[in-house]
Amino acid sequence: MTKDGRPTLETVAVAAGVSLATVSKVLNDRRDVAAATRLRVQELLDEYEYVPPRRSPVHRDATHRRFIELVFTALDSPYSVEIMRGVVSCPVDVVVTSAPDTPDGRGWSGRFAPNDRSGAIIVTSQLTPADQRELARARVPYVLIDPAAELASPEVSTVGATNWAGGLAATQHLLGLGHRRIAAIGGPAAMLCTRARISGYSAALASAGVRLDPELIRHGRFHHRGGHQAAQELFALPDPPTAIFAGSDEQAFGVAEAARLTGRRIPDDLSLVGFDDLPMARWFSPPLTTVRQPLTEMGRTAASMLLGMIEDGEPHGRQVELATELVVRSSTAPPPGRTGAGPAR
Amino acid sequence: MTKDGRPTLETVAVAAGVSLATVSKVLNDRRDVAAATRLRVQELLDEYEYVPPRRSPVHRDATHRRFIELVFTALDSPYSVEIMRGVVSCPVDVVVTSAPDTPDGRGWSGRFAPNDRSGAIIVTSQLTPADQRELARARVPYVLIDPAAELASPEVSTVGATNWAGGLAATQHLLGLGHRRIAAIGGPAAMLCTRARISGYSAALASAGVRLDPELIRHGRFHHRGGHQAAQELFALPDPPTAIFAGSDEQAFGVAEAARLTGRRIPDDLSLVGFDDLPMARWFSPPLTTVRQPLTEMGRTAASMLLGMIEDGEPHGRQVELATELVVRSSTAPPPGRTGAGPAR
Repeated sequence: MTKDGRPTLETVAVAAGVSLATVSKVLNDRRDVAAATRLRVQELLDEYEYVPPRRSPVHRDATHRRFIELVFTALDSPYSVEIMRGVVSCPVDVVVTSAPDTPDGRGWSGRFAPNDRSGAIIVTSQLTPADQRELARARVPYVLIDPAAELASPEVSTVGATNWAGGLAATQHLLGLGHRRIAAIGGPAAMLCTRARISGYSAALASAGVRLDPELIRHGRFHHRGGHQAAQELFALPDPPTAIFAGSDEQAFGVAEAARLTGRRIPDDLSLVGFDDLPMARWFSPPLTTVRQPLTEMGRTAASMLLGMIEDGEPHGRQVELATELVVRSSTAPPPGRTGAGPAR
Repeated sequence: MTKDGRPTLETVAVAAGVSLATVSKVLNDRRDVAAATRLRVQELLDEYEYVPPRRSPVHRDATHRRFIELVFTALDSPYSVEIMRGVVSCPVDVVVTSAPDTPDGRGWSGRFAPNDRSGAIIVTSQLTPADQRELARARVPYVLIDPAAELASPEVSTVGATNWAGGLAATQHLLGLGHRRIAAIGGPAAMLCTRARISGYSAALASAGVRLDPELIRHGRFHHRGGHQAAQELFALPDPPTAIFAGSDEQAFGVAEAARLTGRRIPDDLSLVGFDDLPMARWFSPPLTTVRQPLTEMGRTAASMLLGMIEDGEPHGRQVELATELVVRSSTAPPPGRTGAGPAR
């Protein structure tokens, strides 16, 4: 116990009958602890209401200084703050950088001096070979959140979401309501998350015996305009869709505006599903049915993995996908002319 | 010039015929430089395309380390990321803290060791006397953004927005469209920004000779639910309003949902004005007319003021209000039964 009566890690280690290093590994979410041991330690941490000690001030003791540099390609979306909330909840100082805004105009990865930071979390960025070399040179461990492309190396640690399962769930929901003309709007076609979601969409259609019409698959940037333009194209088809699965909530809002401007009511005339579950999905009118990415949990997981690597002084090479979840609100309903859920074919 | 040909501050100082300290003051947006001098230096900085040098790595040289701790009461709103974008664009490391999440559970202000950080920017927080003592003890200069209450001391530096002018402009816009039953929803009644906005609303009504009906002024938290509940109360009045000026965009979304659930179309049956101009105001359907707070500019200004104080080693005691601006989109129109803008009375 500390002087003020709070338990220390030693207290927990003694009670669990394990080494201090093992307790630390559990705290840092390391894999190399037996499941039973992990459980026992975790229970004792909970029982003692262990709270991590006050952060070391940044400069007081260089050997204990821990930093995470949280790098966003752009701080241009409420998406950022959801991830940040998770990272910031971890017991470490978090320096936030918006990559295009680096004051020296150099790429963000070139800013690291050797051992300058404890580690980096990079959000939705394309990690170039040059970036990877810079990070290796500075010996900076890092974790990618929602990586844009396939990785060159399995040693790179990543945290993502189950995009394929999300695409599947969204499409199954619309099929279950009776829709057969279901469109999908993806992000840029080359992006890993887009490919996984469209693949989940296709799998759901195939399982239901609904023919995939390539005309109903569109791509656009993950922004409002991307959704708006794709919806305009879809509405202009001879046989337009009765439901649209958008690639992001922001795209879905663009679809909704295109619908409003052409006199389509949601969900009466058009069902709409988003992706992300940003706060404003709840605030939309009607509240948006969407596939939730656990963004805050993804941030927390990435920080926890990174702290483990910093402690070990080496990369772990883990790829984690957290579960997506369909959140049904008020933007989806049976297609026009149908009053209830229909059979699957 | 540096070895790679970039101009240094010395280059600019010599060319301008002023001291290095003066150039530095201009860069840091200090007031104590004559306007003509400021202009000349600024022009030379632009001409030489001066770029601030690469940030000092955090720990390499303690005397040059500069930090801003950016403290949010809660990282729970897209509002946060707008401010953050401005702070992060300044040439300084920014450590982001969500106050309730401080790992030690202590109030955020108690986390500062003397000279631990270079300075702090505190967003929409109630700064208690205890907080002020802690900050004074640690000799941490700080700037408040959008302070919740009146300040105990004129020595405290703040950055806000012209809330009174915003309330005035929103209400004048609705009056100009012909509305006479205009409701206002504020944030908590004690908050400084709420009082200023409601006061601007009242002034606009008085100028137009429209009687202020106290029934039409409601208060609620700046959240979706706050707007939703207030709108329900307003819709239940014997003579409900034809227009609502909400205290935040998020409140406005709550109003819109209450309207949808009671069969009111926006703007045909109800005109709606928000406050903030968050990105989702553009994304709403219909796009929201709102009073823009220059949140990113507020963040940048606060950081710039703070860097000036850090350089001087003493607080400046400046209170800055940046201009709000009415952004007219598609959620406002003449009241039902009127087809055009009417006279002011």
